[in-house]
Amino acid sequence: MLTRSAWRNPDREAVVDGARRFTYAELNGEVNRLAHALLAAGYRRGDVLALASGNSVEFLATYYACAKTGVVCVPVNLAWGPPEVSYVLEHSRARGVVVESQLAGLVDGALQLVEGSGVLDVVVAPGTGADWAAGSTGTWRDLATFLGDAGTGEPECLVGDRDPISYLYTSGTTSAPKGVVSSHVAVYIESLNAPLVLGIDGKERSVAMMPLFHTAQLNGFTTGLLYMGGTLVLMRAFDPAALLATIESERITQIFGLPMMYRMMMDHPDIDKRDLSTLRLALYAMAPMPDTDLRRAIEVFGCDFALGFGQTEMNPITTVFPPEYQLSHAGSVGLPVPNVQVGIMDDAGNLLPDGETGEIVYRGPHAMEGYLRNPDATAEAFAHGWFHSGDVGRFDADGLLWFADRKKDVIKTGGENVASIEVEKALYEAEPRIQEVVVVGLPHERWSEAIAAIVTPKPGVELTEEEVLAAARSRLSGFKVPKAVLFADEMPRTATGKIQKNVLREQHKGHFGT
Amino acid sequence: MLTRSAWRNPDREAVVDGARRFTYAELNGEVNRLAHALLAAGYRRGDVLALASGNSVEFLATYYACAKTGVVCVPVNLAWGPPEVSYVLEHSRARGVVVESQLAGLVDGALQLVEGSGVLDVVVAPGTGADWAAGSTGTWRDLATFLGDAGTGEPECLVGDRDPISYLYTSGTTSAPKGVVSSHVAVYIESLNAPLVLGIDGKERSVAMMPLFHTAQLNGFTTGLLYMGGTLVLMRAFDPAALLATIESERITQIFGLPMMYRMMMDHPDIDKRDLSTLRLALYAMAPMPDTDLRRAIEVFGCDFALGFGQTEMNPITTVFPPEYQLSHAGSVGLPVPNVQVGIMDDAGNLLPDGETGEIVYRGPHAMEGYLRNPDATAEAFAHGWFHSGDVGRFDADGLLWFADRKKDVIKTGGENVASIEVEKALYEAEPRIQEVVVVGLPHERWSEAIAAIVTPKPGVELTEEEVLAAARSRLSGFKVPKAVLFADEMPRTATGKIQKNVLREQHKGHFGT
Repeated sequence: MLTRSAWRNPDREAVVDGARRFTYAELNGEVNRLAHALLAAGYRRGDVLALASGNSVEFLATYYACAKTGVVCVPVNLAWGPPEVSYVLEHSRARGVVVESQLAGLVDGALQLVEGSGVLDVVVAPGTGADWAAGSTGTWRDLATFLGDAGTGEPECLVGDRDPISYLYTSGTTSAPKGVVSSHVAVYIESLNAPLVLGIDGKERSVAMMPLFHTAQLNGFTTGLLYMGGTLVLMRAFDPAALLATIESERITQIFGLPMMYRMMMDHPDIDKRDLSTLRLALYAMAPMPDTDLRRAIEVFGCDFALGFGQTEMNPITTVFPPEYQLSHAGSVGLPVPNVQVGIMDDAGNLLPDGETGEIVYRGPHAMEGYLRNPDATAEAFAHGWFHSGDVGRFDADGLLWFADRKKDVIKTGGENVASIEVEKALYEAEPRIQEVVVVGLPHERWSEAIAAIVTPKPGVELTEEEVLAAARSRLSGFKVPKAVLFADEMPRTATGKIQKNVLREQHKGHFGT
Repeated sequence: MLTRSAWRNPDREAVVDGARRFTYAELNGEVNRLAHALLAAGYRRGDVLALASGNSVEFLATYYACAKTGVVCVPVNLAWGPPEVSYVLEHSRARGVVVESQLAGLVDGALQLVEGSGVLDVVVAPGTGADWAAGSTGTWRDLATFLGDAGTGEPECLVGDRDPISYLYTSGTTSAPKGVVSSHVAVYIESLNAPLVLGIDGKERSVAMMPLFHTAQLNGFTTGLLYMGGTLVLMRAFDPAALLATIESERITQIFGLPMMYRMMMDHPDIDKRDLSTLRLALYAMAPMPDTDLRRAIEVFGCDFALGFGQTEMNPITTVFPPEYQLSHAGSVGLPVPNVQVGIMDDAGNLLPDGETGEIVYRGPHAMEGYLRNPDATAEAFAHGWFHSGDVGRFDADGLLWFADRKKDVIKTGGENVASIEVEKALYEAEPRIQEVVVVGLPHERWSEAIAAIVTPKPGVELTEEEVLAAARSRLSGFKVPKAVLFADEMPRTATGKIQKNVLREQHKGHFGT
């Protein structure tokens, strides 16, 4: 895909990485140099190369160099510690690692945990320019040395449609991380969703501030943009002031972030000082935006908003909640993208009609190939011939999908099913002093599970259990009202910012004394 | 693709075929019934079903039913006679034929030419409602009987990415027709070009008047439209008055035809009587539109014009000449679509830089798999790892592709290469009394090939050889001026309207007495 893009638009600006700016010809040349260096080092189709990097042109070069040579790329989640990284290096059978200088210690630590690791090469990219020292395992070289005098011409390697382009390890809150095997054809076709549905084209100037090691930023919104010939401005992290300044200075047309990032930008004093008039589309993911935030954001940013929904196993986008429905159907996760068939299934494998609630299941050409070396989990995920998302939801009469809850977060209490998210939403609406609330089911002798709300109040306010319960009663049927309210200073989260309900359930499992 | 489209937009209008109108759910239901009937009749993945049909919902139902079951569809070119049809039935090893009633005689005649044909089933669709009689070979049934009580539920068949979806036989002017093997993944990805590049989406209302048995109408502009949820209005043939009336009555937004069809519509008295205001995009193919026609058409139709260029072996679109360049770069065939890499190659297999002229070659995921049972022609077509178009052209400094000539139509005269099309263009411009001119090289003792112009004057005008030569001299260097002018009442053409230069070369090969 990059080859063709560079061939069509050699002189167009592809990537901005700090002070470094790359045309498509230059980016493709960097990719080709690394591809040739990998081939010279003996890497072949099916070999595995791990990648520990923040958002940088070297991240992109490594991903595309793997794609061109048939090498499998394994991006490392930067929230992981050495144990998780060592697990992934071992499980993926990585032959080498590309690591940014500031992450050299993480990789060295991980390698020390692996007895007789098969990792031969550690290639250190400049990253943030940190000092680093070679570890005791593998041959450590800096990127320039590894590249040597590799040329920028196109490598010619045979790669199959269904060859893996990457193993993306899921966060694994409840078990060891699972390696999602993504094929070339899946990533190819998925990459076209954003151009097809959101009009991403060669005139787009986008910011990538969400981590490239996560499929949403990588395959959801980067590969398609670079295929259509747009420009990607890389940022290593979200910072409201820096992002607002970048939108102005780089004349950004499209951004992608979490709902809270838009809130933080709107609350920042710079919001009125920056020229945001080039923005045409702001994307968000993970969760619907609260209605008041959304209305304010549409006005403040003066552009369309849309939500992308999906998951790593689908590479990842499955539905898009488009701008024209944002206010009329607030809270929905939108319409299936053309490349994904979305169904609602009961536990027996029957597809359910519109309006009925069940597990959200997917079919389509950009589903994963399976979980690496995990046939049982793969078979379970594809039971009845559909990929099982683990999400519960329903379609409305307009064909829009509504996410209710993670299947495992639905609370079974006194013979009723209660979506934890419904209770959370009611509490947010009824009690503005709540900063964050998480609702889980905890073991209970009488109710089987009893609903519990874990609450973080807004800074500087007081909030009692009785006040929270009164708020719940004002909005919810009796059986949906929590049986207990617990207070917490902050919530446990995964690397991508998801609250770990399973950790809260574990912490508080004895609360009702069972 | 149709399954997902119907799943997303069950109640939207998919196809209009005369008085019959089909929603996506209904169209998909028809497809599924035929798929189940094929399965019940024993058809399996890899079996071959020929299809002799004008533009009708039954054509579409057969193509998609084959796609869903892994059966290979072989559309019959309706300009063929029984000998060509019998060749294709035998060469493709067709197990059955779906034929419209008015074409039953063609298929019967073809089957009689095949000794011990393997064709078991002949299924007669209503078509134009002609009387028909069962032939002597195979079991003849009407479509309703063949369908029986087949249900409309989704069939569940395993089909591979690279399984053939069709064998499309090329016209074969110089040799036996070659069967282009098109894979599912190729047609899938090619279908996305029109949505990606031309903005074809679910709001589109298109007319299909070009034959569906030709890849341009079928995979170029139909499968993508139906994937995005647009509406297709079928017409069995081009008729200027009928098309103008349909644009008005069906509120058509997009049409596709040959340059001469736009000229015929503009010259028709109804052009001023019909409301064409819904049109947003008029596509043309095969050849650039003369500049004066194009300027007039943009004004008369009040919409954007764009050209699609490609060939059957590429399934088919390779470049699009987009609206914004139509007037500034008139005569170009446009920009490569994202899914195709376009190169210019010399005879030794070297890629040439922009500006240099050579053979146009292609790479990309929607190239054909090869020619059916013809490894030599396949190897030749993919020499040096690129598909060889047989077209000669160059890229300009703006990245636009210019088609110069078919490689075999380039005239080698006195040590110089002359593009026949350049001479034709000069004659059209300099001598308005020419209706049509074809320039070929004919064997000549001194010049190796000598340039000859075959001319059809406009009706009712007189034109002499000397006048034509004077026109040529006014525009061309001496070595490009024809050595002879021959007059013809009409030109020999292929089924798709291409002038057969090879036939003219053969007819006149003795003109210079060699």
